[in-house]
Amino acid sequence: MWMAELSSRSGVPIATVKYYLREGLLPPGESTGATRAVYSDEHVRRLRLVRALSDVGGLRLADVRRVLAAVDDEDTTLHDVLGVAQGALSPLGPAPTRRSVDRVAALVRRRRWRVAPDGANAAALARALDAMDDVDDGLPDEALDGYAGVVADLAAVEVPTIDASSAETAVRQTVVRTVLVEPVLLALRRMAHEDVSGRRFDRRRR
Amino acid sequence: MWMAELSSRSGVPIATVKYYLREGLLPPGESTGATRAVYSDEHVRRLRLVRALSDVGGLRLADVRRVLAAVDDEDTTLHDVLGVAQGALSPLGPAPTRRSVDRVAALVRRRRWRVAPDGANAAALARALDAMDDVDDGLPDEALDGYAGVVADLAAVEVPTIDASSAETAVRQTVVRTVLVEPVLLALRRMAHEDVSGRRFDRRRR
Repeated sequence: MWMAELSSRSGVPIATVKYYLREGLLPPGESTGATRAVYSDEHVRRLRLVRALSDVGGLRLADVRRVLAAVDDEDTTLHDVLGVAQGALSPLGPAPTRRSVDRVAALVRRRRWRVAPDGANAAALARALDAMDDVDDGLPDEALDGYAGVVADLAAVEVPTIDASSAETAVRQTVVRTVLVEPVLLALRRMAHEDVSGRRFDRRRR
Repeated sequence: MWMAELSSRSGVPIATVKYYLREGLLPPGESTGATRAVYSDEHVRRLRLVRALSDVGGLRLADVRRVLAAVDDEDTTLHDVLGVAQGALSPLGPAPTRRSVDRVAALVRRRRWRVAPDGANAAALARALDAMDDVDDGLPDEALDGYAGVVADLAAVEVPTIDASSAETAVRQTVVRTVLVEPVLLALRRMAHEDVSGRRFDRRRR
Protein backbone atom coordinates (compact mmCIF):
# COMPACT_ATOMS: atom_id res chain seq x y z
CA MET A 1 0.00 0.00 0.00
CA TRP A 2 1.05 3.62 -0.48
CA MET A 3 1.53 6.03 2.37
CA ALA A 4 -1.98 7.49 1.90
CA GLU A 5 -3.56 4.10 2.55
CA LEU A 6 -1.18 3.40 5.46
CA SER A 7 -2.33 6.69 6.95
CA SER A 8 -6.04 6.03 6.50
CA ARG A 9 -5.85 2.41 7.70
CA SER A 10 -3.89 3.30 10.83
CA GLY A 11 -5.71 6.56 11.49
CA VAL A 12 -2.37 8.37 11.77
CA PRO A 13 -2.01 11.60 9.73
CA ILE A 14 0.58 11.52 6.91
CA ALA A 15 2.69 14.26 8.52
CA THR A 16 2.91 12.11 11.68
CA VAL A 17 3.79 8.98 9.68
CA LYS A 18 6.66 10.91 8.08
CA TYR A 19 7.80 12.11 11.49
CA TYR A 20 7.85 8.53 12.83
CA LEU A 21 9.85 7.41 9.76
CA ARG A 22 12.42 10.17 10.32
CA GLU A 23 12.67 9.28 14.03
CA GLY A 24 13.12 5.58 13.22
CA LEU A 25 9.96 4.54 15.13
CA LEU A 26 8.62 3.07 11.89
CA PRO A 27 10.89 1.05 9.55
CA PRO A 28 11.14 2.42 5.98
CA GLY A 29 8.83 0.96 3.32
CA GLU A 30 10.07 -0.94 0.33
CA SER A 31 11.41 1.64 -2.09
CA THR A 32 9.80 1.63 -5.56
CA GLY A 33 11.42 4.73 -7.00
CA ALA A 34 13.19 7.89 -5.88
CA THR A 35 10.25 9.24 -3.84
CA ARG A 36 7.79 6.36 -3.45
CA ALA A 37 7.69 3.35 -1.16
CA VAL A 38 5.17 0.61 -0.41
CA TYR A 39 4.12 -0.35 3.08
CA SER A 40 2.76 -3.58 4.54
CA ASP A 41 0.36 -4.76 7.24
CA GLU A 42 3.34 -4.84 9.56
CA HIS A 43 3.63 -1.07 9.17
CA VAL A 44 -0.04 -0.67 10.10
CA ARG A 45 0.51 -2.77 13.22
CA ARG A 46 3.62 -0.85 14.20
CA LEU A 47 1.88 2.50 13.68
CA ARG A 48 -1.03 1.48 15.89
CA LEU A 49 1.43 0.39 18.56
CA VAL A 50 3.42 3.65 18.44
CA ARG A 51 0.13 5.53 18.64
CA ALA A 52 -1.08 3.58 21.65
CA LEU A 53 2.23 4.05 23.46
CA SER A 54 2.45 7.79 22.86
CA ASP A 55 -1.20 8.92 22.85
CA VAL A 56 -2.85 6.47 25.24
CA GLY A 57 0.14 5.66 27.41
CA GLY A 58 1.56 9.18 27.36
CA LEU A 59 5.09 7.79 26.91
CA ARG A 60 7.92 10.11 25.94
CA LEU A 61 9.71 9.36 22.65
CA ALA A 62 12.71 7.80 24.44
CA ASP A 63 10.39 5.38 26.26
CA VAL A 64 8.51 4.50 23.06
CA ARG A 65 11.89 3.65 21.54
CA ARG A 66 12.79 1.47 24.51
CA VAL A 67 9.53 -0.52 24.25
CA LEU A 68 9.95 -0.95 20.48
CA ALA A 69 13.52 -2.21 20.98
CA ALA A 70 12.16 -4.85 23.36
CA VAL A 71 9.42 -5.78 20.87
CA ASP A 72 12.01 -6.20 18.11
CA ASP A 73 14.52 -8.18 20.16
CA GLU A 74 13.53 -11.78 19.53
CA ASP A 75 15.56 -13.03 22.49
CA THR A 76 13.28 -11.14 24.87
CA THR A 77 10.35 -13.21 26.12
CA LEU A 78 6.87 -11.78 25.66
CA HIS A 79 6.60 -11.46 29.43
CA ASP A 80 9.70 -9.27 29.54
CA VAL A 81 8.44 -7.16 26.63
CA LEU A 82 5.15 -6.59 28.47
CA GLY A 83 7.16 -5.80 31.59
CA VAL A 84 9.12 -3.12 29.75
CA ALA A 85 5.88 -1.62 28.42
CA GLN A 86 4.17 -1.69 31.84
CA GLY A 87 7.24 -0.22 33.51
CA ALA A 88 7.30 2.64 31.01
CA LEU A 89 3.65 3.38 31.86
CA SER A 90 4.25 3.81 35.60
CA PRO A 91 5.95 7.14 36.11
CA LEU A 92 8.73 7.35 38.66
CA GLY A 93 7.88 9.36 41.73
CA PRO A 94 9.47 10.23 45.06
CA ALA A 95 11.04 7.26 46.84
CA PRO A 96 8.49 5.52 49.10
CA THR A 97 9.21 4.98 52.78
CA ARG A 98 11.01 1.84 53.94
CA ARG A 99 7.91 0.84 55.91
CA SER A 100 5.64 0.84 52.85
CA VAL A 101 8.22 -0.87 50.64
CA ASP A 102 8.43 -3.63 53.27
CA ARG A 103 4.63 -3.91 53.43
CA VAL A 104 4.47 -4.31 49.63
CA ALA A 105 7.23 -6.93 49.69
CA ALA A 106 5.36 -8.84 52.41
CA LEU A 107 2.14 -8.68 50.37
CA VAL A 108 3.95 -10.03 47.30
CA ARG A 109 5.28 -12.94 49.39
CA ARG A 110 1.87 -13.65 50.94
CA ARG A 111 0.25 -13.78 47.51
CA ARG A 112 3.23 -15.54 45.88
CA TRP A 113 3.08 -12.95 43.09
CA ARG A 114 5.84 -13.10 40.51
CA VAL A 115 6.50 -9.37 40.27
CA ALA A 116 9.68 -7.32 40.39
CA PRO A 117 9.89 -6.25 44.08
CA ASP A 118 11.82 -3.11 43.10
CA GLY A 119 9.74 -2.45 39.95
CA ALA A 120 7.73 0.63 39.04
CA ASN A 121 4.38 -0.95 39.98
CA ALA A 122 5.54 -2.02 43.44
CA ALA A 123 6.99 1.45 44.04
CA ALA A 124 3.70 3.08 42.93
CA LEU A 125 1.81 0.91 45.43
CA ALA A 126 4.23 1.80 48.24
CA ARG A 127 3.80 5.52 47.47
CA ALA A 128 0.00 5.12 47.51
CA LEU A 129 0.24 3.47 50.95
CA ASP A 130 2.43 6.35 52.15
CA ALA A 131 -0.22 8.84 51.03
CA MET A 132 -2.85 7.00 53.09
CA ASP A 133 -0.55 6.98 56.14
CA ASP A 134 -0.04 10.73 55.80
CA VAL A 135 -3.72 11.60 55.72
CA ASP A 136 -5.56 8.92 57.59
CA ASP A 137 -4.77 6.04 59.84
CA GLY A 138 -3.49 4.19 56.79
CA LEU A 139 -4.80 1.10 55.03
CA PRO A 140 -4.79 -2.00 57.28
CA ASP A 141 -3.18 -5.16 55.90
CA GLU A 142 -6.56 -6.95 55.89
CA ALA A 143 -7.99 -4.30 53.55
CA LEU A 144 -4.87 -4.41 51.38
CA ASP A 145 -5.16 -8.20 51.13
CA GLY A 146 -8.84 -7.83 50.23
CA TYR A 147 -8.06 -5.46 47.38
CA ALA A 148 -5.21 -7.70 46.21
CA GLY A 149 -7.59 -10.65 46.04
CA VAL A 150 -10.08 -8.65 43.96
CA VAL A 151 -7.50 -7.52 41.38
CA ALA A 152 -5.95 -11.00 41.22
CA ASP A 153 -9.36 -12.37 40.20
CA LEU A 154 -9.69 -9.52 37.69
CA ALA A 155 -6.27 -10.11 36.15
CA ALA A 156 -6.95 -13.82 35.85
CA VAL A 157 -9.85 -12.93 33.54
CA GLU A 158 -8.24 -9.97 31.77
CA VAL A 159 -4.78 -11.22 30.83
CA PRO A 160 -5.81 -14.42 29.00
CA THR A 161 -7.90 -12.34 26.57
CA ILE A 162 -4.73 -10.66 25.31
CA ASP A 163 -3.91 -11.72 21.77
CA ALA A 164 -0.36 -13.06 22.03
CA SER A 165 0.00 -13.97 18.35
CA SER A 166 2.42 -11.09 17.86
CA ALA A 167 4.43 -9.13 20.40
CA GLU A 168 3.21 -5.89 18.84
CA THR A 169 -0.46 -6.73 19.25
CA ALA A 170 0.08 -8.05 22.76
CA VAL A 171 1.95 -4.91 23.86
CA ARG A 172 -0.62 -2.62 22.25
CA GLN A 173 -3.52 -4.39 23.91
CA THR A 174 -1.73 -4.42 27.26
CA VAL A 175 -1.08 -0.68 27.12
CA VAL A 176 -4.58 0.18 25.94
CA ARG A 177 -6.29 -2.01 28.52
CA THR A 178 -4.04 -1.01 31.37
CA VAL A 179 -4.52 2.69 30.74
CA LEU A 180 -8.05 2.93 29.35
CA VAL A 181 -9.75 0.42 31.63
CA GLU A 182 -8.47 2.27 34.71
CA PRO A 183 -10.88 5.24 34.42
CA VAL A 184 -13.71 2.77 33.67
CA LEU A 185 -12.98 0.88 36.89
CA LEU A 186 -12.69 4.03 39.00
CA ALA A 187 -15.92 5.57 37.67
CA LEU A 188 -17.73 2.26 38.26
CA ARG A 189 -16.40 2.07 41.82
CA ARG A 190 -17.66 5.58 42.54
CA MET A 191 -21.08 4.67 41.12
CA ALA A 192 -21.22 1.51 43.22
CA HIS A 193 -20.35 3.57 46.30
CA GLU A 194 -23.11 6.02 45.41
CA ASP A 195 -25.55 3.10 45.21
CA VAL A 196 -24.52 1.39 48.46
CA SER A 197 -24.37 4.66 50.38
CA GLY A 198 -27.85 5.51 49.08
CA ARG A 199 -29.29 2.26 50.40
CA ARG A 200 -27.49 2.66 53.70
CA PHE A 201 -27.74 6.34 54.53
CA ASP A 202 -30.69 7.67 52.55
CA ARG A 203 -33.36 7.98 55.21
CA ARG A 204 -30.93 8.00 58.09
CA ARG A 205 -31.77 10.71 60.64
CA ARG A 206 -28.76 12.85 61.43
CA MET B 1 -7.74 24.83 73.37
CA TRP B 2 -5.79 27.77 71.95
CA MET B 3 -5.03 28.11 68.29
CA ALA B 4 -1.53 26.61 68.75
CA GLU B 5 -3.01 23.35 70.03
CA LEU B 6 -5.72 23.39 67.35
CA SER B 7 -2.95 23.65 64.77
CA SER B 8 -0.84 20.87 66.22
CA ARG B 9 -3.79 18.51 66.78
CA SER B 10 -5.14 18.99 63.25
CA GLY B 11 -1.74 19.15 61.56
CA VAL B 12 -2.75 22.39 59.85
CA PRO B 13 -0.26 25.30 60.10
CA ILE B 14 -1.43 28.37 62.08
CA ALA B 15 -1.28 30.62 58.99
CA THR B 16 -3.63 28.23 57.16
CA VAL B 17 -6.01 28.04 60.13
CA LYS B 18 -6.21 31.86 60.09
CA TYR B 19 -6.86 31.80 56.35
CA TYR B 20 -9.73 29.30 56.79
CA LEU B 21 -11.20 31.49 59.58
CA ARG B 22 -11.07 34.58 57.30
CA GLU B 23 -12.68 32.63 54.45
CA GLY B 24 -15.42 31.32 56.74
CA LEU B 25 -14.47 27.65 56.17
CA LEU B 26 -13.91 27.33 59.93
CA PRO B 27 -16.36 28.91 62.41
CA PRO B 28 -14.78 31.39 64.84
CA GLY B 29 -13.69 30.15 68.28
CA GLU B 30 -15.22 31.36 71.52
CA SER B 31 -13.76 34.78 72.19
CA THR B 32 -11.96 35.17 75.55
CA GLY B 33 -10.54 38.63 75.07
CA ALA B 34 -9.69 41.10 72.36
CA THR B 35 -7.26 38.84 70.51
CA ARG B 36 -7.74 35.36 71.97
CA ALA B 37 -10.29 32.64 71.33
CA VAL B 38 -10.68 29.02 72.42
CA TYR B 39 -11.42 26.19 70.03
CA SER B 40 -13.14 22.85 70.51
CA ASP B 41 -12.92 19.30 69.18
CA GLU B 42 -15.48 20.35 66.57
CA HIS B 43 -12.92 22.75 65.15
CA VAL B 44 -10.39 19.93 64.91
CA ARG B 45 -12.90 17.77 63.01
CA ARG B 46 -13.85 20.62 60.70
CA LEU B 47 -10.19 21.40 59.97
CA ARG B 48 -9.43 17.79 59.10
CA LEU B 49 -12.43 17.75 56.75
CA VAL B 50 -11.42 20.99 54.99
CA ARG B 51 -7.90 19.58 54.66
CA ALA B 52 -9.14 16.32 53.13
CA LEU B 53 -11.39 18.14 50.67
CA SER B 54 -8.74 20.58 49.49
CA ASP B 55 -5.49 18.62 49.75
CA VAL B 56 -6.62 15.04 49.09
CA GLY B 57 -9.67 15.76 46.94
CA GLY B 58 -8.10 18.71 45.15
CA LEU B 59 -11.36 20.69 45.44
CA ARG B 60 -11.41 24.41 44.71
CA LEU B 61 -12.46 26.73 47.52
CA ALA B 62 -15.95 27.21 46.05
CA ASP B 63 -16.51 23.44 46.02
CA VAL B 64 -15.19 23.04 49.57
CA ARG B 65 -17.73 25.69 50.60
CA ARG B 66 -20.52 23.81 48.81
CA VAL B 67 -19.70 20.53 50.57
CA LEU B 68 -19.48 22.27 53.97
CA ALA B 69 -22.87 23.90 53.39
CA ALA B 70 -24.35 20.44 52.76
CA VAL B 71 -22.65 19.09 55.90
CA ASP B 72 -24.08 21.96 57.98
CA ASP B 73 -27.61 21.75 56.58
CA GLU B 74 -29.35 19.36 58.94
CA ASP B 75 -32.22 18.83 56.52
CA THR B 76 -29.86 17.16 54.03
CA THR B 77 -29.64 13.38 54.45
CA LEU B 78 -26.22 11.87 54.91
CA HIS B 79 -26.58 10.20 51.52
CA ASP B 80 -27.12 13.54 49.84
CA VAL B 81 -24.18 15.08 51.69
CA LEU B 82 -21.97 12.23 50.49
CA GLY B 83 -23.38 12.73 46.99
CA VAL B 84 -22.40 16.40 47.01
CA ALA B 85 -18.89 15.46 48.15
CA GLN B 86 -18.51 12.68 45.54
CA GLY B 87 -19.87 14.96 42.82
CA ALA B 88 -17.36 17.66 43.70
CA LEU B 89 -14.55 15.08 43.37
CA SER B 90 -15.40 14.09 39.79
CA PRO B 91 -14.27 16.90 37.54
CA LEU B 92 -16.50 17.90 34.65
CA GLY B 93 -15.13 17.02 31.24
CA PRO B 94 -16.25 17.16 27.64
CA ALA B 95 -19.80 15.88 27.08
CA PRO B 96 -19.78 12.13 26.37
CA THR B 97 -21.42 10.71 23.23
CA ARG B 98 -25.10 9.79 23.26
CA ARG B 99 -24.15 6.15 22.62
CA SER B 100 -21.99 5.88 25.75
CA VAL B 101 -24.50 7.79 27.89
CA ASP B 102 -27.14 5.26 26.80
CA ARG B 103 -24.85 2.33 27.55
CA VAL B 104 -24.23 3.66 31.06
CA ALA B 105 -27.98 4.19 31.61
CA ALA B 106 -28.64 0.62 30.46
CA LEU B 107 -25.95 -0.69 32.83
CA VAL B 108 -27.50 1.21 35.74
CA ARG B 109 -30.89 -0.34 34.93
CA ARG B 110 -29.42 -3.85 34.58
CA ARG B 111 -27.74 -3.55 37.97
CA ARG B 112 -30.64 -1.65 39.58
CA TRP B 113 -28.13 0.86 40.89
CA ARG B 114 -29.57 3.90 42.66
CA VAL B 115 -27.28 6.50 41.10
CA ALA B 116 -27.96 9.84 39.45
CA PRO B 117 -28.11 8.93 35.70
CA ASP B 118 -26.94 12.45 34.78
CA GLY B 119 -24.44 12.71 37.65
CA ALA B 120 -20.72 13.33 37.51
CA ASN B 121 -19.79 9.68 38.04
CA ALA B 122 -22.03 8.40 35.25
CA ALA B 123 -20.63 11.06 32.91
CA ALA B 124 -17.08 10.08 33.83
CA LEU B 125 -17.87 6.45 32.98
CA ALA B 126 -19.42 7.43 29.63
CA ARG B 127 -16.31 9.48 28.77
CA ALA B 128 -14.08 6.53 29.68
CA LEU B 129 -16.12 4.28 27.35
CA ASP B 130 -15.77 6.89 24.60
CA ALA B 131 -11.99 6.84 25.01
CA MET B 132 -11.97 3.05 24.55
CA ASP B 133 -14.14 3.34 21.43
CA ASP B 134 -11.73 5.88 19.96
CA VAL B 135 -8.64 3.76 20.39
CA ASP B 136 -9.67 0.17 20.34
CA ASP B 137 -12.74 -1.84 19.50
CA GLY B 138 -14.28 -0.55 22.69
CA LEU B 139 -15.24 -2.41 25.86
CA PRO B 140 -17.95 -5.06 25.26
CA ASP B 141 -21.00 -5.03 27.55
CA GLU B 142 -20.03 -8.41 29.01
CA ALA B 143 -16.71 -6.95 30.18
CA LEU B 144 -18.42 -3.82 31.50
CA ASP B 145 -20.88 -5.99 33.47
CA GLY B 146 -17.98 -8.03 34.81
CA TYR B 147 -16.21 -4.91 36.10
CA ALA B 148 -19.49 -3.57 37.53
CA GLY B 149 -19.96 -6.81 39.47
CA VAL B 150 -16.45 -6.59 40.90
CA VAL B 151 -16.83 -3.00 42.13
CA ALA B 152 -20.32 -3.71 43.51
CA ASP B 153 -18.80 -6.45 45.68
CA LEU B 154 -16.03 -4.04 46.69
CA ALA B 155 -18.42 -1.22 47.60
CA ALA B 156 -20.56 -3.61 49.65
CA VAL B 157 -17.51 -4.17 51.85
CA GLU B 158 -16.11 -0.63 51.75
CA VAL B 159 -19.11 1.59 52.44
CA PRO B 160 -20.34 -0.09 55.66
CA THR B 161 -16.94 0.60 57.29
CA ILE B 162 -17.58 4.34 57.01
CA ASP B 163 -18.14 5.92 60.42
CA ALA B 164 -21.53 7.63 60.08
CA SER B 165 -21.65 9.00 63.64
CA SER B 166 -21.11 12.52 62.29
CA ALA B 167 -21.58 13.91 58.79
CA GLU B 168 -18.13 15.49 58.97
CA THR B 169 -16.37 12.23 59.73
CA ALA B 170 -18.40 10.35 57.11
CA VAL B 171 -17.64 12.90 54.39
CA ARG B 172 -13.95 13.02 55.30
CA GLN B 173 -13.64 9.22 55.22
CA THR B 174 -15.55 9.03 51.94
CA VAL B 175 -13.29 11.59 50.26
CA VAL B 176 -10.10 10.08 51.64
CA ARG B 177 -11.04 6.53 50.70
CA THR B 178 -12.44 7.44 47.30
CA VAL B 179 -9.34 9.37 46.31
CA LEU B 180 -6.53 7.61 48.14
CA VAL B 181 -7.65 4.02 47.61
CA GLU B 182 -7.82 4.57 43.83
CA PRO B 183 -4.03 4.60 43.28
CA VAL B 184 -3.76 1.57 45.59
CA LEU B 185 -6.25 -0.35 43.47
CA LEU B 186 -4.61 0.63 40.17
CA ALA B 187 -1.08 -0.24 41.33
CA LEU B 188 -2.36 -3.59 42.65
CA ARG B 189 -4.10 -4.32 39.34
CA ARG B 190 -0.89 -3.62 37.42
CA MET B 191 1.03 -5.93 39.76
CA ALA B 192 -1.56 -8.67 39.36
CA HIS B 193 -1.28 -8.30 35.57
CA GLU B 194 2.49 -8.55 35.85
CA ASP B 195 2.08 -11.79 37.80
CA VAL B 196 -0.48 -13.43 35.52
CA SER B 197 1.36 -12.38 32.38
CA GLY B 198 4.55 -13.82 33.86
CA ARG B 199 2.95 -17.20 34.44
CA ARG B 200 1.38 -17.16 31.01
CA PHE B 201 4.01 -15.73 28.73
CA ASP B 202 7.32 -16.22 30.49
CA ARG B 203 8.80 -19.17 28.62
CA ARG B 204 6.64 -18.68 25.58
CA ARG B 205 8.68 -18.93 22.34
CA ARG B 206 8.04 -16.00 20.05
